[in-house]
Order: sequence, then C-alpha cells, then structure tokens
Amino acid sequence: MRISELSRRSGVPVTTIKYYLREGLLPPGRPTAANQADYDESHARRLRLVRALVGVRGLSVSAAKDVLGGIGEHEGDVHQLLGIVLGSAGTAGAAAAAQAGAEPPRPRMAEVDALLDSLGWEVSDNAPTKGVIAETLETLGDLGIEYDWKKLVPYAELAGQIASVDLDGIQDLADPLEQAERALVLTFLLEPVLMALRRLAQEHQSAVRRRGPSADISPAAP
Amino acid sequence: MRISELSRRSGVPVTTIKYYLREGLLPPGRPTAANQADYDESHARRLRLVRALVGVRGLSVSAAKDVLGGIGEHEGDVHQLLGIVLGSAGTAGAAAAAQAGAEPPRPRMAEVDALLDSLGWEVSDNAPTKGVIAETLETLGDLGIEYDWKKLVPYAELAGQIASVDLDGIQDLADPLEQAERALVLTFLLEPVLMALRRLAQEHQSAVRRRGPSADISPAAP
Repeated sequence: MRISELSRRSGVPVTTIKYYLREGLLPPGRPTAANQADYDESHARRLRLVRALVGVRGLSVSAAKDVLGGIGEHEGDVHQLLGIVLGSAGTAGAAAAAQAGAEPPRPRMAEVDALLDSLGWEVSDNAPTKGVIAETLETLGDLGIEYDWKKLVPYAELAGQIASVDLDGIQDLADPLEQAERALVLTFLLEPVLMALRRLAQEHQSAVRRRGPSADISPAAP
Repeated sequence: MRISELSRRSGVPVTTIKYYLREGLLPPGRPTAANQADYDESHARRLRLVRALVGVRGLSVSAAKDVLGGIGEHEGDVHQLLGIVLGSAGTAGAAAAAQAGAEPPRPRMAEVDALLDSLGWEVSDNAPTKGVIAETLETLGDLGIEYDWKKLVPYAELAGQIASVDLDGIQDLADPLEQAERALVLTFLLEPVLMALRRLAQEHQSAVRRRGPSADISPAAP
C-alpha cells in the first residue's frame, strides 16, 4: 500500500509516519518509483506498536527505538525475543541512565537479591526493575517506615500469578513477532488497570471489614 | 519543638516547612511568642506524609492538599477515613479534571460496571479509577486488540488478593490517623514495586517456559 493508505488505515498523519521512517522506528517500504514506496501489513502492525509506545505510554522516540531494536534483532527465537521485550519494556530510560553513569548506588539492592533468591526467580543481573524495588525500600526507610524484603514476598507471589495470566494471554498467537508485540503492549497498557483494580479492591474490602465478618452483607441493612 | 528542630529531624528545609504551613498542608503550631510556635509529633508525621506525596510521588501541592483534607475531616471514623484515603489516593488530579468538565465520555464504562458487578465489589459510583480501566479498553480497541472486560476477571481477582495483603499490613497500627497515612503511603509507593515484580516474574517465567516443563531446571544445564 502507499503511505497515504497506511496513514488512512492507522489514523497516523503522513508527516508523523515520515518522521518515524526517518528516525528508524519504522522500516523503509519497498521502493516502487523515484519518490514512492510500498508498505505492507508488517508496517501497519509496527506503526500500531510505535503509537502505543510513544503516543499512549509516553516513551521518548529514542527509548522506543531501543525497545523496538530488541524485537528486530531476535526475530528468529520466540522466547529470546519475548525475554528481550519483557526485560526492556519501560526500562529503556533506566538503562540509558545506567549507561550514562547516572545510576545512583543502591544500598538495599542486597535485599532485592535476597527476595529473588527466596523466590527462585532467574532474572538478568542488571535488570533495571531491580533498582526500582531497592529505591522504594530506601524511600520507605527515609519515611520512618520499617519495611524489609520479607514483606514483599506475598506481593511477589501474586505478581508471579499476574505474569502467568500475561503469558497465557499471548500463547495463542502463532506469529512470534506478533506475540512479542502483544506482550509489550499488554505489559505497558495493563499497568494502570492493575493499579486501578487494586485501589477499587481496597475500597471494597475496607467497606467489608468495617461491617465485620458476621454482619449482614446486604447494602440495604440500616 | 521549634521549627528548626522539626527541620533538623525531618531533613526538610525551614523555608519548605514555612511554605507548607502557608499552603495549609501542615497545620499551624501552638504559638509560644510573637514570631514563634511549638510543633509536636503530629507535625513531624504529617510532614513525612507531605514529603511522600509531593516529593516522592510528585503530586501537586493542591492535589496533596485534597488528599490530606480527606484525612483531617474524618479523623473520628477509622474505616470512613481509610475509605477516603484509598478512594482519593492518586486520583486527585482526575477528580479535579472531572470537576472542570474536562473528563471525556467513556464509551466502555458499561463494561467496567459489568466487571465490578461480576466481582461483587461495592465501590463509589464516581471512582476515577473506573475511568482508567474504561480508557485502557478503548486504547486497546484503537490498537486493534480485541479485549473485553471478561479478560480482566483473573487480574481483578489477583488485585483483590493484593489489596488483602495491603489491608492486613496496616491492621496492627493502633492509631487510625497513622493507619490512614500508612495506607496512603504504601498504596502509592508500592505501585512501581508491584509492576517491577510483575516484569521480573514475566522474565523468569518466559525463561522457564522456553525450557519446557520437563526440562532440567538447573541453570548450569547446557
């Protein structure tokens, strides 16, 4: 299809598509004339993904490029690909900070390692997500709240069950590239949903606990 | 204690404390002289909470004021207080947007109601968190991903278990104000941790699934 058709189908303006092409977020089309190229389904799908990363989740163009680069390089191996996508999702900024030497030392990182050991989770040593956990333990300490890694164990076990639901949800997709893209999109986009559900559940359970376990559940009770 | 002592103990500069006093984020101290006031433990605790909201989670001063106002008004009733805090946590911005008439209509809100009905959760009708879920369903639709509320049921059940862990964790605090403050801080600060744990679990489980269920689990296997 021509770039105008790609724009019409995706709802992304032609100028924006050209910008993504220049920045390498979208691979070039097949040249058909001096100033024309042909685009196919893979371009339409990649464009949707770019929009999800840049438009919806607010990643910078260079961070999105890092994430998408990971997909392109490992197209042969489904699980390798999935690992790259899941490992890099949303942490491109943290990785860039680490490369720039801007990553601060994390005094409570040993606790994060203890947590992962106790769970038996195998993750890459430099996963930037580990830094997020260490940093939060430090912040809680600064606020005078005693909080050690053992309190995170029940949360981690539930997060593990969430990850199972995540992975089950993409297993029916045949195409590995599509699988990786779906994993990336759902990992990102469901984050605010999961946190919203947690808050709604807190509100509900707080009301139930207020009434006590033996109280009448009917909301009409005086 | 004097304001200088409050500053020393909290690590918050005197000028910042004075700003919070002017903005009403911190209640005034007990006047002791023309230009002096005495502050107590409740000021120190409130100051920690303000720092967590404004400094760590990046709430605007007016959003933090809304949240803290909710605490102050319901000091008598533990569960009422808890409900206010949990309901308002992090949604002050959304509530302000709704008041300003800036909230867009949410075509998929009926699905969110269907989800909550199926779970039997009692939550306030105008919970801004509901809008987050409806909005995400719309975004997924825009990206060409078929996603209906039934797919959210397993996530919601796990979010409910997370909320149980949350509420259990504050039940040993005797003081209701402290309980509400702790709930607020942990709800906010554990969000990035929960999402980090989910990603680490995805990475781990993706590796385990790659090897297959019957494969040797030892990482040293060739």
